[in-house]
Amino acid sequence: MATMTRARRAPDTPAEDGRDGLFLRNHWYVAAWRDEVGRKPLARVVLGDYLVLFRTEDGRAVALENRCPHRNLPLSEGRLIGDTLECGYHGMVFDCRGACTHLPGAPQPPAWARVKAYPVIERRGWVMVWMGDPARADESAAPDYNVRLDDPAWFSLKGYINVRCGYRLILDNLLDLSHLAYVHGSTTGNRALAEQATITAEVEESRVRVTRWMSDIPPAKAFVDYAGYGGTIDRWQVSEYTTPSYIYVNSGTAPAGRGVSPAERRDSQGLWGFVVYHALTPETARSTHQFWAVALEQRMVPEAGRPDFEKQMLNIPLEDVAIYEAQQRAIDLDPEAPDGDVRPRGMIAADKGLFAMRKILQRLHAAENRKPA
Amino acid sequence: MATMTRARRAPDTPAEDGRDGLFLRNHWYVAAWRDEVGRKPLARVVLGDYLVLFRTEDGRAVALENRCPHRNLPLSEGRLIGDTLECGYHGMVFDCRGACTHLPGAPQPPAWARVKAYPVIERRGWVMVWMGDPARADESAAPDYNVRLDDPAWFSLKGYINVRCGYRLILDNLLDLSHLAYVHGSTTGNRALAEQATITAEVEESRVRVTRWMSDIPPAKAFVDYAGYGGTIDRWQVSEYTTPSYIYVNSGTAPAGRGVSPAERRDSQGLWGFVVYHALTPETARSTHQFWAVALEQRMVPEAGRPDFEKQMLNIPLEDVAIYEAQQRAIDLDPEAPDGDVRPRGMIAADKGLFAMRKILQRLHAAENRKPA
Amino acid sequence: MATMTRARRAPDTPAEDGRDGLFLRNHWYVAAWRDEVGRKPLARVVLGDYLVLFRTEDGRAVALENRCPHRNLPLSEGRLIGDTLECGYHGMVFDCRGACTHLPGAPQPPAWARVKAYPVIERRGWVMVWMGDPARADESAAPDYNVRLDDPAWFSLKGYINVRCGYRLILDNLLDLSHLAYVHGSTTGNRALAEQATITAEVEESRVRVTRWMSDIPPAKAFVDYAGYGGTIDRWQVSEYTTPSYIYVNSGTAPAGRGVSPAERRDSQGLWGFVVYHALTPETARSTHQFWAVALEQRMVPEAGRPDFEKQMLNIPLEDVAIYEAQQRAIDLDPEAPDGDVRPRGMIAADKGLFAMRKILQRLHAAENRKPA
Repeated sequence: MATMTRARRAPDTPAEDGRDGLFLRNHWYVAAWRDEVGRKPLARVVLGDYLVLFRTEDGRAVALENRCPHRNLPLSEGRLIGDTLECGYHGMVFDCRGACTHLPGAPQPPAWARVKAYPVIERRGWVMVWMGDPARADESAAPDYNVRLDDPAWFSLKGYINVRCGYRLILDNLLDLSHLAYVHGSTTGNRALAEQATITAEVEESRVRVTRWMSDIPPAKAFVDYAGYGGTIDRWQVSEYTTPSYIYVNSGTAPAGRGVSPAERRDSQGLWGFVVYHALTPETARSTHQFWAVALEQRMVPEAGRPDFEKQMLNIPLEDVAIYEAQQRAIDLDPEAPDGDVRPRGMIAADKGLFAMRKILQRLHAAENRKPA
Repeated sequence: MATMTRARRAPDTPAEDGRDGLFLRNHWYVAAWRDEVGRKPLARVVLGDYLVLFRTEDGRAVALENRCPHRNLPLSEGRLIGDTLECGYHGMVFDCRGACTHLPGAPQPPAWARVKAYPVIERRGWVMVWMGDPARADESAAPDYNVRLDDPAWFSLKGYINVRCGYRLILDNLLDLSHLAYVHGSTTGNRALAEQATITAEVEESRVRVTRWMSDIPPAKAFVDYAGYGGTIDRWQVSEYTTPSYIYVNSGTAPAGRGVSPAERRDSQGLWGFVVYHALTPETARSTHQFWAVALEQRMVPEAGRPDFEKQMLNIPLEDVAIYEAQQRAIDLDPEAPDGDVRPRGMIAADKGLFAMRKILQRLHAAENRKPA
Repeated sequence: MATMTRARRAPDTPAEDGRDGLFLRNHWYVAAWRDEVGRKPLARVVLGDYLVLFRTEDGRAVALENRCPHRNLPLSEGRLIGDTLECGYHGMVFDCRGACTHLPGAPQPPAWARVKAYPVIERRGWVMVWMGDPARADESAAPDYNVRLDDPAWFSLKGYINVRCGYRLILDNLLDLSHLAYVHGSTTGNRALAEQATITAEVEESRVRVTRWMSDIPPAKAFVDYAGYGGTIDRWQVSEYTTPSYIYVNSGTAPAGRGVSPAERRDSQGLWGFVVYHALTPETARSTHQFWAVALEQRMVPEAGRPDFEKQMLNIPLEDVAIYEAQQRAIDLDPEAPDGDVRPRGMIAADKGLFAMRKILQRLHAAENRKPA
């Protein structure tokens, strides 16, 4: 149906915090996987900003505003000359700090000819950009994710999806893993997972950790197939949100009764399990770049079973995308939904972490947008 | 041309009655044909509301708000369990009255967990929903249409079209059947039909009946082909509008001079003719669900001629859709057009019924939206 | 990427001059090439107005408002009857002045039944419409372009492109031909063209002429291929803007040192060159009808080389379209860009003509929109 338009939104909706999609700027965001950034300029919209990414000759990733200050052509339409980027329209050349180093036909470029340069770091496969005040860019604030990406004892699957929904809907998804029972029932979920969990939510300044512990439940299909479980199991799922928009998931199992201690649940996979890393980078208020990686110890899936396993794993994010995008359609048809975000009519136990995550976002957003006195 | 955008609409257009497309809510609307609603949930937008329709195990049609109150997933993404609908995201289960009967992992669902249930009735093939205050739902207010649908002496053709125009444009079309001369000239219309009609419009509280009487005119092609007319004929067309958005058409003919009395014209087809039923259910301000059925006595078209006849009949609504959608494009390019509706610059005799229909809509819309004193 | 939406545009942007795309109305605009207009009505949006174009039986081009005053169907959906256009809905007939000459079933049409008629002239292949007050239509104000179109000593290539950008971006392109070095480097441009030009801009009341003179530079590829240059050349490019939205380009070359005098540069092609005519007719604020023609003396390209040459020439406008449309995307992502137009952060020598052109547009737009005292 091509008609999912907002039919009755009042025209005088006041400007609210968050009408921009509740974007936080003074943070690191993943802009690309390392292999997406090379000597061919890459255009990408992050928090509504138009960026161009490329690598210098010695391999350093660079992110500039993707809009020539002269006639506004995206610089990604141009070409690299050494470590500089030449505009594809009238040939202005910009260096990695965004300064114009050459204006064709002129002895020197004018001072106004510069584009914004975004601080960039690379961490274990992710090219991350700082979207706020460059003076405040702090490498230590970037999460250390994908820690198993280059570990030979592990193998990884990874992906990028451009999702047509606001980023908070994806964070919600990952902070309530009971959805595996309904969205991923043919692989990693079963009903017991949703019905028999003990859920705890730990909230810190800029972090929310939701732990689901399921005792003595039947194993979901993937756990039978790959771990060879016959009887019931203990299962644990930890979803850890880190500002602004990262999720770490640890998923482990053990034969019923053997389990792992609460202290170990964040990092142990027990007899069979995996870890997942997600970076959810807002593109616009209603679209998100989802960067994900799942990592398993080599022993979890024998080489012979890998092709089948990979096929299953690669399908799981697509099952989620169908959910997020359907949610966004229902939200966009809701004249009372604020700001393109979900409008829950109440809260259940499983939502504690989701609400805490939104509170953190709102607090930080208000702080960033506070008018100086 | 991909550029049919409203280029000059002033930004400060005041909110008007009808900016929602002049939707009336305290009425029955057709939401689906009976065979569209079954054990697979059906999503449909009606008056901007997002609905999910399904049938209970004993075949009763149900309509609920298609938005889980928890995380807003369309419930149509879920699955039926007996007479309940399970959300496809976190497994909340809703009964046919919209109440949550199960929250996974909880002893009982919270009181806020409910979705709106829309009163539903079924009438001769149409699943009808009440879009206003459920307490005011009154079955007797639903029109009794499609009266020949299951009559063995008759045969019917029916269809559903999602049309990209406001519903009033379709009502207009059906209240001025002179358009057959121009839009359906290869089948049911000819020039004489437009040139030589006597038109009368009868206006009641919630009904408008336009009668076109054409005396001693040449028969249009379909009437030659199927009725075998050689000489001129008398022809009558009655279009009867019933609030909020229904049209009944009776079309009859007789050899010139034999005719039918004015009193009989509403229901007699004479020697050859047919009846048509239309339900025009607003989807959004600029899109409409058109449910239509044409019915003829078995004798009108012999079995051998049916395939050809059906092909012709099925093409007629598509000829109209091309018109409505072209109108909507012209309207959307008109900065002076109010509310996505047509902006006629004057009125001709044939428009009397159309204007009366709009007046009824405006009166009822104003009554529904009157602020309590 | 399907997400080039303006994410952060403030909702209270005040209405500005030019929010309509800075359209001037009291001017002639090219609406079509002569062979696009015939006995099949052609729908076209010009300055946001919906037009229908057709030819009378004796070949005269006519332009009417493409919206029936009765029920707003585009008249282009109807059919021609002699020199009149019959609406495809209810058969109202309009003559070439927009007056209704027949209302089916009525002795005479009502006085209100008329559509706007746009003055039309034809000039050397272009069907031009006057978009302002018809009383002020002045044929002498139309530019005399395409002067070689029917000259047997010359050959021409021509085209029409519906471009998804505002018309000013295309004027910019043509007033700074240094872009040949970057956008058309495989045919008509090379780096020397951008680096070694002397640029002069002459500004008149309603005309801007930018002349680029390049002395002793290597020839671009097309000039080697078709003129057989071995050594360096002198090259000249003249871009002449005429209100509201026309560009004439003259491009000439000669062996280095031979040149042409400044006085001759506007019209001489020297040893090898061509002239180009562009009409950039605004469709909406963000889309433009581009009508172009390039003309060369027969001697410039021998018959045997024509197919190859034509292929190259036909590709050049498409190279430009990729630029314009990428610019528009970058502009639409810029919350500070006014009115869908470019937001340069400064001005270089080559922009003098572009700024002068915008000043003329703004002056004329203000004059057209001045409120009477």
